[in-house]
Amino acid sequence: MYRTHTCGELRIQNKLNKVILSGWVQRMRELGAMTFIDLRDRYGITQLVVDDKSTDEVRKITAELGREFVIQAEGEVKERSSKNPKIPTGDIEIAVEKITVLNKSEIPPFTIEDNSDGGDDLRMKYRYLDLRRNPLKQALILRHKMAQEVRRYLDSQNFLEIETPYLIKSTPEGARDFVVPSRVNAGEFYALPQSPQTFKQILMVAGYDRYFQIVRCFRDEDLRADRQPEFTQIDCEMSFVEQKDVLQMFEGLAKHLFKNVLNVELQEITQMTYADAMKYYGSDKPDIRFDMKLHEITELAKGKGFSLFDNSEYIGAICAKGCSAYTRKQIDELTEWVKRPQIGATGLIYIRLGEDGIKSSIDKFFTTEQLQEIANETSAQQGDLILVLCGAKKKTQGQLGSLRLEMGNRLGLRDAKLFVPLWVVDFPLFEWDNDTQRFYAMHHPFTSPKPEHIDKFYSSNNEDIENVNANAYDFVVNGVELGGGSIRIFDRNLQQRMFEILGFTPEAAESQFGFLMNAFKYGAPPHGGIAFGFDRFCAMFGGSDSIRDYIAFPKNNNGRDVMIDSPSPIDNSQLEELSIKLDLKKR
Amino acid sequence: MYRTHTCGELRIQNKLNKVILSGWVQRMRELGAMTFIDLRDRYGITQLVVDDKSTDEVRKITAELGREFVIQAEGEVKERSSKNPKIPTGDIEIAVEKITVLNKSEIPPFTIEDNSDGGDDLRMKYRYLDLRRNPLKQALILRHKMAQEVRRYLDSQNFLEIETPYLIKSTPEGARDFVVPSRVNAGEFYALPQSPQTFKQILMVAGYDRYFQIVRCFRDEDLRADRQPEFTQIDCEMSFVEQKDVLQMFEGLAKHLFKNVLNVELQEITQMTYADAMKYYGSDKPDIRFDMKLHEITELAKGKGFSLFDNSEYIGAICAKGCSAYTRKQIDELTEWVKRPQIGATGLIYIRLGEDGIKSSIDKFFTTEQLQEIANETSAQQGDLILVLCGAKKKTQGQLGSLRLEMGNRLGLRDAKLFVPLWVVDFPLFEWDNDTQRFYAMHHPFTSPKPEHIDKFYSSNNEDIENVNANAYDFVVNGVELGGGSIRIFDRNLQQRMFEILGFTPEAAESQFGFLMNAFKYGAPPHGGIAFGFDRFCAMFGGSDSIRDYIAFPKNNNGRDVMIDSPSPIDNSQLEELSIKLDLKKR
Repeated sequence: MYRTHTCGELRIQNKLNKVILSGWVQRMRELGAMTFIDLRDRYGITQLVVDDKSTDEVRKITAELGREFVIQAEGEVKERSSKNPKIPTGDIEIAVEKITVLNKSEIPPFTIEDNSDGGDDLRMKYRYLDLRRNPLKQALILRHKMAQEVRRYLDSQNFLEIETPYLIKSTPEGARDFVVPSRVNAGEFYALPQSPQTFKQILMVAGYDRYFQIVRCFRDEDLRADRQPEFTQIDCEMSFVEQKDVLQMFEGLAKHLFKNVLNVELQEITQMTYADAMKYYGSDKPDIRFDMKLHEITELAKGKGFSLFDNSEYIGAICAKGCSAYTRKQIDELTEWVKRPQIGATGLIYIRLGEDGIKSSIDKFFTTEQLQEIANETSAQQGDLILVLCGAKKKTQGQLGSLRLEMGNRLGLRDAKLFVPLWVVDFPLFEWDNDTQRFYAMHHPFTSPKPEHIDKFYSSNNEDIENVNANAYDFVVNGVELGGGSIRIFDRNLQQRMFEILGFTPEAAESQFGFLMNAFKYGAPPHGGIAFGFDRFCAMFGGSDSIRDYIAFPKNNNGRDVMIDSPSPIDNSQLEELSIKLDLKKR
Repeated sequence: MYRTHTCGELRIQNKLNKVILSGWVQRMRELGAMTFIDLRDRYGITQLVVDDKSTDEVRKITAELGREFVIQAEGEVKERSSKNPKIPTGDIEIAVEKITVLNKSEIPPFTIEDNSDGGDDLRMKYRYLDLRRNPLKQALILRHKMAQEVRRYLDSQNFLEIETPYLIKSTPEGARDFVVPSRVNAGEFYALPQSPQTFKQILMVAGYDRYFQIVRCFRDEDLRADRQPEFTQIDCEMSFVEQKDVLQMFEGLAKHLFKNVLNVELQEITQMTYADAMKYYGSDKPDIRFDMKLHEITELAKGKGFSLFDNSEYIGAICAKGCSAYTRKQIDELTEWVKRPQIGATGLIYIRLGEDGIKSSIDKFFTTEQLQEIANETSAQQGDLILVLCGAKKKTQGQLGSLRLEMGNRLGLRDAKLFVPLWVVDFPLFEWDNDTQRFYAMHHPFTSPKPEHIDKFYSSNNEDIENVNANAYDFVVNGVELGGGSIRIFDRNLQQRMFEILGFTPEAAESQFGFLMNAFKYGAPPHGGIAFGFDRFCAMFGGSDSIRDYIAFPKNNNGRDVMIDSPSPIDNSQLEELSIKLDLKKR
């Protein structure tokens, strides 16, 4: 037997017990003739003591121990003379009677502490050592808890967890697929799913009523920071539901998770239309922990002879409360901030409501009364600072939205301990792409139009089609989109029209999605669902912006697993069996 | 709102309630002016009644309904005059006041009944219709329950569910990998995991102590009946354990599942060595629901002048209780059965203990006393039939094992309602392959030798190596292997020796498993684990031999998903982006 207890288990009640512990040497301290060893396992740390009452054998082995050695120690539980109230086992220590080295360790390439001295690349390569650190361990334990609670809730609501296949079919719509050459069917390929979308709809057609899965999805995208080629979704679908039924069910899930994982009582989830989100927050995922809404001042600001404004489609302002004392330097710095390529604004106008009255960077063109009108529009009061951006409407709203978040950060308005959820609804069904001169589905091609927009959906006029709203919804918390879904098309003709608008030939639609449209012939029920980004959900619960710490074995920004050194070349015999060969171009 | 209740919910207590139901038309019956509609959803069937009190509108719509139409019906719950005790809703029916067709259905290509008239291929193509049938629905609901109970138990035992990557690295050892070309890293490939073996070991090195995952695995094998290219495992690993700790933990899991899913109290799980399993049952997965052990009679039967025996390495017998009255025809038929290529025996000898004394097909060579000696050896009594096979030892044991199972079937000794579990232990670590003239790991290359066999493990003598036993174990129920595992190597040198025996060059070992051997340098704990075949576990619980019904979307024997028609060709542009081209040979 390797242990009678874990390293997080012993308390003062265990005093005088003979115990066996196994674990890793976290650190060692010598104090005169005494050696203290912090023994660590997943459950905690327990102090071992070797002193002059220990046997020669024990002292000899102890002298040869090093960090991260795996040892087994046998001894008696004693009350500590100087207790450590910071750890649950801090009242006791083990007087070691026998010690065995189960495995040695070379000196780790970085310290296994909450704040390691190892760089990112090194820690990725030695992921097994990085994973020993508390922050990563807590992240994965949190993820485990989340997964169990997701299942507990959905199981209690009669959802069935049903596994859908990973070897499916490539469809060019959407992001790039990872593909898998078939050996048995030479020249043919499977694709890894970007989501189980069509399968979950098929399950609704099959009458399964409520489905869920915590499922891996794959996208062969050029990786940006914090995107992973494989990621995990909580994927759900329900039959015989309208939008409000879905929102209610998953409001329940969100509340369950916040309550049972974080012990947070989530407030009622408000709904906001996509149009309002863009208008008031310059974002389709507004952070509504703080106000500071966008105010359009185009009417008030245009035609005053300031050519930058006069040539703009849109002029918008936010009011930063209590910031009238911002220095020239601070404002210059903000101006640089909005001019960075990530934001892309051409400049920043300010109006200051100081003790000495209204001052602005556009005093030359505006009277005090005109500035006051703008101030009134933004509800600014003495002591506030108004920040103004102008340009093309959509772009400027986005820039102002980013500036709003930045000001929220600077003013400490984005409380990490506060969670404010939101449903964003009434998305447009389509986005027009100028480059390819075609419509794309904003959500995906299976999302149904709003019933009241069906006429426009069948219109031959592009402007009508652009104005069709979708029966779609996003779940947003603190400015982060955690999930999204829609009520689906369940009518074969409507689905065909959708593919037509997206520029599919009938043949292409048939070859890629024929099975779904066929299924719609045989009694498809009304249905809808949602998918949550599980990695991001976990990161948000853990208080982190980065999903990487919440994935046990993430890939780097080149899609490489540097620990196992993958991807890697394969044998020619393997290629041959798969009926493919390499086709490398000099680049 | 589409429904106030499901179709499985209403009882006599709901009498006079106004309700709305939605579902599929299972069948319709006319009785004079009355039309009865069985409305079906996942939860059950509720009877709707349309009669001459119904509105014209309702009667008009009803007249146009067909099988599998999706409808919504509104009405009042009434007590039935003739109740149906076979279904939970059999006391009531709904007097329909309003009816809406939500979606029509063409006539399904086969009947949606417990016993469908559709052939296998047709049902695979229209899987969404096949999945509507009760047996498949029950299978997937069982699978859902199993998954939840597996997690409930392992979570209660402090196991953490940790997701391991699906895009990993190809290793030529073992079965063929499915590979995934990397676009970003041209000329390189990921592989899909055959199991998360190395990752779960890495998690033990990382100190996670107890890990599990219900996880998809992939094997590109030539498909035999009832093998799938993707399949699901319950994958588990524990640190600081010996074999008995692992067996005890997963005996707990098995008991939990049998109790909570089937309400069966599982008996204590016995252990049997691999050697005994082969000797007494001719199988490494014995069905011990019945006795009928193999008896070696080589000593007793050799040297009596019967050349078939005299030239055999091994002669073995089973005793079929009460079968002495088997006719010549029955014995001929059994003889044909053992001579089929699947069994491959050259013939069958019998000894009959009838009322008229001992008779056999080898009377010419054996005296009654000699036959009686054989009968004594097999504990045969009057009324029994002894069946004898001979030949090479291992092969004959296997044949006799198959004959034993067949006789068990014929004698009704394999009770489908009885579950008798077994641990098979002490497997050989290696198998010698004559074709390739090398050793293969019987379990996998990470399995540790028995501590008492370490000397033989380091021996340069092949015979010694062949006699090394593994710290490995299989979980067998009713003759089906449901899981297997081992205590792992956690010492770098031992692992290197293992790769050496398996014929790896140090370079090949390093390039494929270097990350694991490196990890062993930094304090790897003793660890071991197990993996269960989840598909098969579910099939066994459902009383089926075939896993296909327990997988929502299985592939056929050519690895094709005929519903979505995959695998399929991909675009040249896709191939080009992936830096590969097709290399099709004329075959």
